[in-house]
Amino acid sequence: MSATWVPGVSPDTPFSLANIPFGIISTSNDPAPHAAVAIGAHVLDLKVLATYSKFAELFPAFAGKEDVLSAPTLNEFAALGREVHRDVRGTIQQLLSAETTNPEALRDNDELRQKALLSQRSVKVHLPVSIGDYTDFYAGYHHAYAVGVMFRGPQHALQPNYTHLPVGYHGRASSIVVSGTPICRPNGQILLDPTAEPKQPITGPSRRLDIELELGCIIAKPNRMGSPIKIADAEDHIFGYVLLNDWSARDIQTWEYVPLGPFNSKNFASTISPWVVLADALEPFRTRPIENKTALQGYLKDGREDTVFDIELEVDIETPQGDTTTICRTSSKNLMWSFPQMIAHHSLGGCPMNTGDLLGSGTISGPDPRESGSLLELSKGGKEDIMLYGMDVRRFLKDGDTITIRGSCGKPGQRVGFGECIGRIETALPL
Amino acid sequence: MSATWVPGVSPDTPFSLANIPFGIISTSNDPAPHAAVAIGAHVLDLKVLATYSKFAELFPAFAGKEDVLSAPTLNEFAALGREVHRDVRGTIQQLLSAETTNPEALRDNDELRQKALLSQRSVKVHLPVSIGDYTDFYAGYHHAYAVGVMFRGPQHALQPNYTHLPVGYHGRASSIVVSGTPICRPNGQILLDPTAEPKQPITGPSRRLDIELELGCIIAKPNRMGSPIKIADAEDHIFGYVLLNDWSARDIQTWEYVPLGPFNSKNFASTISPWVVLADALEPFRTRPIENKTALQGYLKDGREDTVFDIELEVDIETPQGDTTTICRTSSKNLMWSFPQMIAHHSLGGCPMNTGDLLGSGTISGPDPRESGSLLELSKGGKEDIMLYGMDVRRFLKDGDTITIRGSCGKPGQRVGFGECIGRIETALPL
Repeated sequence: MSATWVPGVSPDTPFSLANIPFGIISTSNDPAPHAAVAIGAHVLDLKVLATYSKFAELFPAFAGKEDVLSAPTLNEFAALGREVHRDVRGTIQQLLSAETTNPEALRDNDELRQKALLSQRSVKVHLPVSIGDYTDFYAGYHHAYAVGVMFRGPQHALQPNYTHLPVGYHGRASSIVVSGTPICRPNGQILLDPTAEPKQPITGPSRRLDIELELGCIIAKPNRMGSPIKIADAEDHIFGYVLLNDWSARDIQTWEYVPLGPFNSKNFASTISPWVVLADALEPFRTRPIENKTALQGYLKDGREDTVFDIELEVDIETPQGDTTTICRTSSKNLMWSFPQMIAHHSLGGCPMNTGDLLGSGTISGPDPRESGSLLELSKGGKEDIMLYGMDVRRFLKDGDTITIRGSCGKPGQRVGFGECIGRIETALPL
Repeated sequence: MSATWVPGVSPDTPFSLANIPFGIISTSNDPAPHAAVAIGAHVLDLKVLATYSKFAELFPAFAGKEDVLSAPTLNEFAALGREVHRDVRGTIQQLLSAETTNPEALRDNDELRQKALLSQRSVKVHLPVSIGDYTDFYAGYHHAYAVGVMFRGPQHALQPNYTHLPVGYHGRASSIVVSGTPICRPNGQILLDPTAEPKQPITGPSRRLDIELELGCIIAKPNRMGSPIKIADAEDHIFGYVLLNDWSARDIQTWEYVPLGPFNSKNFASTISPWVVLADALEPFRTRPIENKTALQGYLKDGREDTVFDIELEVDIETPQGDTTTICRTSSKNLMWSFPQMIAHHSLGGCPMNTGDLLGSGTISGPDPRESGSLLELSKGGKEDIMLYGMDVRRFLKDGDTITIRGSCGKPGQRVGFGECIGRIETALPL
């Protein structure tokens, strides 16, 4: 992949010419949310680009569908299908390349370029898709094992179903927010003393507020109700990927989750990164998942072995005093189940998946304790301090803490990354 | 409540003048789904009614919002708030009353009446609301206890949290369908022999396909993220109620549900009745819930005692041979938690509830075994035959079976009911 003519593109940017992730922005000139792509420290405003006189020649996929780029979400674009996404991304890469064969379209078109190429700092990002349903899986093997040991001991750490199917549950779609949205510490029912009888919960702010480092997958093509998606077709149903922080209140979770699963401990907020990295952009970074020695059911057998991505992930915590510590570095390859397997399983009984639906991978942790994607693991179940810069420590999040997740693949100058997925904790509301 | 001038209204209709439930229909003249109310064996097409020259005088609430009645869902109408629903229902009752003070509007307006008052048989019903998020609670005490005994024995039948909070989980919104939609038996992973080691599931059609008799509650007014709904305000957030059959594949459920709750066992389909009974229409049928001796947390304490409704519910099964047996008769009063309590709990941590969101009560069963709202209970965990007319028996559903749920309150001639919530089981797809 060649370089871009766009000025000031750092070799470290996650938004190199090899990426071209899609998002929804609003600008001071056009406050109605609409489509854009990120390139270096800039965005290319696609609604403005669509006003170019020869736009229809450049992007035949949008013929008669120019409104797609003015829509307030990427759902209509996602629904156009993976071939269109590939074509559009390719054309944009061509337009932005230092070796563009079409310099008069944008590079040398001063009026259009000045209107369409904007500093990222000057635009506001929005939730990139309207999410009808959100499903959170549990495919991060090391996380599932580590948490299982805490709750049930090493002998029963993983339930017998874990290696047979990608365990998942339905999450709350209405509380998914874009990076940068403040996160209010939730109030909830908490059982402070689990040994006292009779059990007596209190109601108050969560004392064990946690993060979950996840990769999110966004659905492109829907399936009809009653028509499962076969694993061989699953890639065609994927639009792209985002980073996901599935905030979790561990104390609320412990008390509420038996027998039907997590509820208020999760439904107060989940944060996603604003730029959707297209499925094609991640193709060069495929690798093998964590080995699963169980003989799989046919519908979960994939024809390929490199079914997950090796994305370098890291989590920073910034204290209210402004000290930042990277508390986790790991890779998204630490999954036992791939997204195509999750999609095949999710739709096996005929469940319809719609454009814009979000699937979370589950918390991603590596085999080393420093690769843990949750504070629950990093603090050994809340029993040990996590040491931070500035002589500070944490077991769980304090008010004013800011969590930043980053994810990136590839070499300097050709990085394919997500940018940042950020949330700052605000004080709980008075009851 | 007086009688209506609408012809052929049987004293047994659930859609008496005291009811006036709202739904979405399409007709041969107007195939675009739009709003209507049910009255006896007829519907009043509200989109047609809105063409009446003096409509704006009759319904000032719709001034400038006439499009609401042409919308393909009731969401915009629901969002107008409970006072508007009350006014509009009152005005429609006035128009349809035998003692109407405004006979020239509809009763004696031959042209309008003939266009607007249609036989229910001549219209198609659609999903009444667009459901963003679906949450299923577990508030049916007798069901929770009976199923708990089966899985964990009488000593641990109810988890310690059960009487402290309304246990619930997030369901799948995309597979909610309107009454009459065929239900395809789901394929899924099933552990046929739970005692064999190593555990080896198979993939195939569910052999233990079940129903769940539930009451559904639809949200009207949304709350902002981070702003819980106080229990005293919860009624203002309720649009109305529907019957809900939360189809469940028990064999898939048993294998998948630990530790994160039901997933494929539930997400293939849930059926709701087409007519939304407005919250105000059920007010006369309030009664006390099942007594809960636990001292409740403040946010769950209601100022009133009659927090649930005494709706007579029944479930029919019709075999492929055409024999129909009523297998369950019970009441919706068999809940330990009210919908206002569920709403207050759901939003306690700040979760935003949106217009059109659906809350399920959980399976409703009475204290007597014949009042059981699931086949799992009626067949004692699949161990005993349920005797049907036509010399037939069931433990779970067979292909071609049709389940019909009905629910109604009040005296003949003044009934407030839901009509029917129907689904017929179709053969599973080949794998």
